[in-house]
Amino acid sequence: MSTPTKILLEESDIPTHWYNIVADMPNPPTPPLGPDGQPVSPEALSAIFPNAILEQEMSGERWIAIPDEVREAYRIWRPSPLHRAHRLERMLGTPAKIYYKNEAISPAGSHKPNTAVPQAFYNRQAGIMRLSTETGAGQWGSSLAFAGQMFGIAVRVYMVKVSYQQKPSRRSTMQTWGAEVFASPSEMTKAGRDMLAVDPNNLGSLGLAISEAVEEAAGRADTNYALGSVLNHVLLHQTVIGLEAKKQFAKIGAYPDMIFAPCGGGSNFGGIGFPFLADKAAGDAKAKNLRVVAVEPISCPTLTRGVYAYDYGDASGYTPIMKMYTLGHDFMPPGIHAGGLRYHGASPLVSQLFHEKLIEAVAVPQLATFEAGLMFARAEGIIPAPESCHGIRACIDEALRCKQSGEPKTLLFNLSGHGHFDMAAYDRYFAGGLEDFAYPSEAVTASLKHLPKVG
Amino acid sequence: MSTPTKILLEESDIPTHWYNIVADMPNPPTPPLGPDGQPVSPEALSAIFPNAILEQEMSGERWIAIPDEVREAYRIWRPSPLHRAHRLERMLGTPAKIYYKNEAISPAGSHKPNTAVPQAFYNRQAGIMRLSTETGAGQWGSSLAFAGQMFGIAVRVYMVKVSYQQKPSRRSTMQTWGAEVFASPSEMTKAGRDMLAVDPNNLGSLGLAISEAVEEAAGRADTNYALGSVLNHVLLHQTVIGLEAKKQFAKIGAYPDMIFAPCGGGSNFGGIGFPFLADKAAGDAKAKNLRVVAVEPISCPTLTRGVYAYDYGDASGYTPIMKMYTLGHDFMPPGIHAGGLRYHGASPLVSQLFHEKLIEAVAVPQLATFEAGLMFARAEGIIPAPESCHGIRACIDEALRCKQSGEPKTLLFNLSGHGHFDMAAYDRYFAGGLEDFAYPSEAVTASLKHLPKVG
Repeated sequence: MSTPTKILLEESDIPTHWYNIVADMPNPPTPPLGPDGQPVSPEALSAIFPNAILEQEMSGERWIAIPDEVREAYRIWRPSPLHRAHRLERMLGTPAKIYYKNEAISPAGSHKPNTAVPQAFYNRQAGIMRLSTETGAGQWGSSLAFAGQMFGIAVRVYMVKVSYQQKPSRRSTMQTWGAEVFASPSEMTKAGRDMLAVDPNNLGSLGLAISEAVEEAAGRADTNYALGSVLNHVLLHQTVIGLEAKKQFAKIGAYPDMIFAPCGGGSNFGGIGFPFLADKAAGDAKAKNLRVVAVEPISCPTLTRGVYAYDYGDASGYTPIMKMYTLGHDFMPPGIHAGGLRYHGASPLVSQLFHEKLIEAVAVPQLATFEAGLMFARAEGIIPAPESCHGIRACIDEALRCKQSGEPKTLLFNLSGHGHFDMAAYDRYFAGGLEDFAYPSEAVTASLKHLPKVG
Repeated sequence: MSTPTKILLEESDIPTHWYNIVADMPNPPTPPLGPDGQPVSPEALSAIFPNAILEQEMSGERWIAIPDEVREAYRIWRPSPLHRAHRLERMLGTPAKIYYKNEAISPAGSHKPNTAVPQAFYNRQAGIMRLSTETGAGQWGSSLAFAGQMFGIAVRVYMVKVSYQQKPSRRSTMQTWGAEVFASPSEMTKAGRDMLAVDPNNLGSLGLAISEAVEEAAGRADTNYALGSVLNHVLLHQTVIGLEAKKQFAKIGAYPDMIFAPCGGGSNFGGIGFPFLADKAAGDAKAKNLRVVAVEPISCPTLTRGVYAYDYGDASGYTPIMKMYTLGHDFMPPGIHAGGLRYHGASPLVSQLFHEKLIEAVAVPQLATFEAGLMFARAEGIIPAPESCHGIRACIDEALRCKQSGEPKTLLFNLSGHGHFDMAAYDRYFAGGLEDFAYPSEAVTASLKHLPKVG
């Protein structure tokens, strides 16, 4: 019983500050641009975001204090455990030491509450009593419902209709936490009504759901909008993951050689990766050879196959344009089960770090991710979300390379969420009904023709 | 941040011994009887249980060592946190201090792995490579599947057909951990075939599923049987819950005045309650006024309305008879969603303690339990299983009495599991489709006429 299986921290170890990687980037981040081609002013966004959030979005400060009320709410589930995957190592027969940060233990079952809680707090502080948002598979919507409940804020969620129909349990969790949930396209907004007029049977898309949520927030003075990934402040809030993990590694006198995390919008990847990149930026010897790897689906390979260009954040072109790796804002990814990774772009911060070769990226096929998730579940007992299976796959692949080379590398991945609401996907995998999607080359080529013109 | 929200222990605090309440009972436990009316010998049970389990079943030793391999597996999720329910207290406006032990964080999502793991271990140690069992809603089946996977044991689960059809996600978790799952009644056993011959559309019952699992274990030399509640060794294993909770209370210098736990077979109730009753038995002053309360459904009120008599453990009368509070072994409880509490009897140990007035019991109606579960989810962020909602209801009722009386009592309940696989029940509650069942007086009267004759 000498080496612990879980490295735990006390609640007093919950970070007091978030880490802002902007302070350590070799070049300043590229600003989002408005329809006039000029950087978007905070004022233009204040109709849907509170000032505290906008300040964080634009901030260059390295450390940003976490309000006491947010740390208090974090205590419901944080600090999250860092696990040593002894059993997975034995199953693989690898000399690698595998660790994972377990974000699946949050009330909503993923890392998303790390940012939902501060977003709800800052909105409440600004006197906002209603939030609107969109959700695909439901991870983000349920997290914001939970956070809204913590601070007495009403939450309305536009849920992509196909998920609304296929994932009733996720919908129920949002209702349990008091949120209103509407299938998108809905009759509640012009964007929804316009779509339904053209196509009454439309099953929705994340882009359209964003349009509905933004329209509602922009049109109502009492309502703001909240986003679950992509933006700087979202990644900032998620750095509690990596900051805790660093304390946990320090506690056992270890440090990772490589870090893996699934990457859709980029928030769980940034959350675990950025605080370690801070060590590298500071010239810390132990981080000298650290490699941080974003893992994405082959069917939606934003970093590995996309272009680095200005593009819209949503499918309809309602948002400012941001410089990022993109497959084109109207690219519709194949129907893989990792709904959280079906996004055409990547966070501007993650994109710039990738462009400057400070991080790496790999793409993996769907079946191999479920195979890895099953190995993990059987070895470690925790059933991972399909998104999380991507990070596990890449980590297992590296552990198997270590087996070949004999290198006892220290590997870390972020277990971003559990798969309790995704068992239908595992069912299809068991039944042989899951397919691998090739890189959708023609669709990407087509959508890249619609990139917005800049300057 | 002075009072922690979660009281945590290190892995080195995982108990080294289970606590056996038999050593502290005023009277020795009544033995199970065989068809001849004589106490059942260990030999008679050795066809389906390993000797180590049978020794524990019969043991009068106060402390029984936990094998290193079991403690090693416990480390995947234990020690579980003890939470202070600050937010629930504020929501209720009560001066009571409410604590809950969080068993929902186990891989299978409930307290059941606490006994599944040692049962799998002892069977493997005895050279048994296959286990058969039954499951209703799936909590026990998934826990044994997980534990079997830990020790390389094949697990076959007979799942009540109506649950097999209604809860595909629970079935999938078992398959994820490598178990075979069959809808019961099945074609695999004589018991199943006999039922299907009479009624091809039969939806199954826990009693019939037990019969199938026992028949398979009795008929195959390589296969044993495992039970998830009721028996002495099962309650023994669950005492890790209360033993940890005592250490956690000691850490903050507190002690409960009252303890609440749902009670079906009795294993989570015994698990949290027995170690505290040990203090009372030892004359410990702080436990002098401790009250330990079993909470059951009004529709299946074994302790509060049943008779204390010898009865079968299963519906078909295959098992030895045990002295326990029972509603009659062929009593079919109404279809409440807390499937784990739909059992006609109660553990013989719990029954004897209740008969000797060392513990208390209350019965609560279904709708009130979901109301309590929803309050808890909104205050504390964790969605509880329908079974767990029973303990929460009784605890909230006491906290509200404290609000009236102004007493700052310290209350503890066992959060036995999460409700992630029970969201359809919450959906029905939201939609107004859940009903309250009255005490099924006539059905109980009828089934009590079938109690076995003794002596």
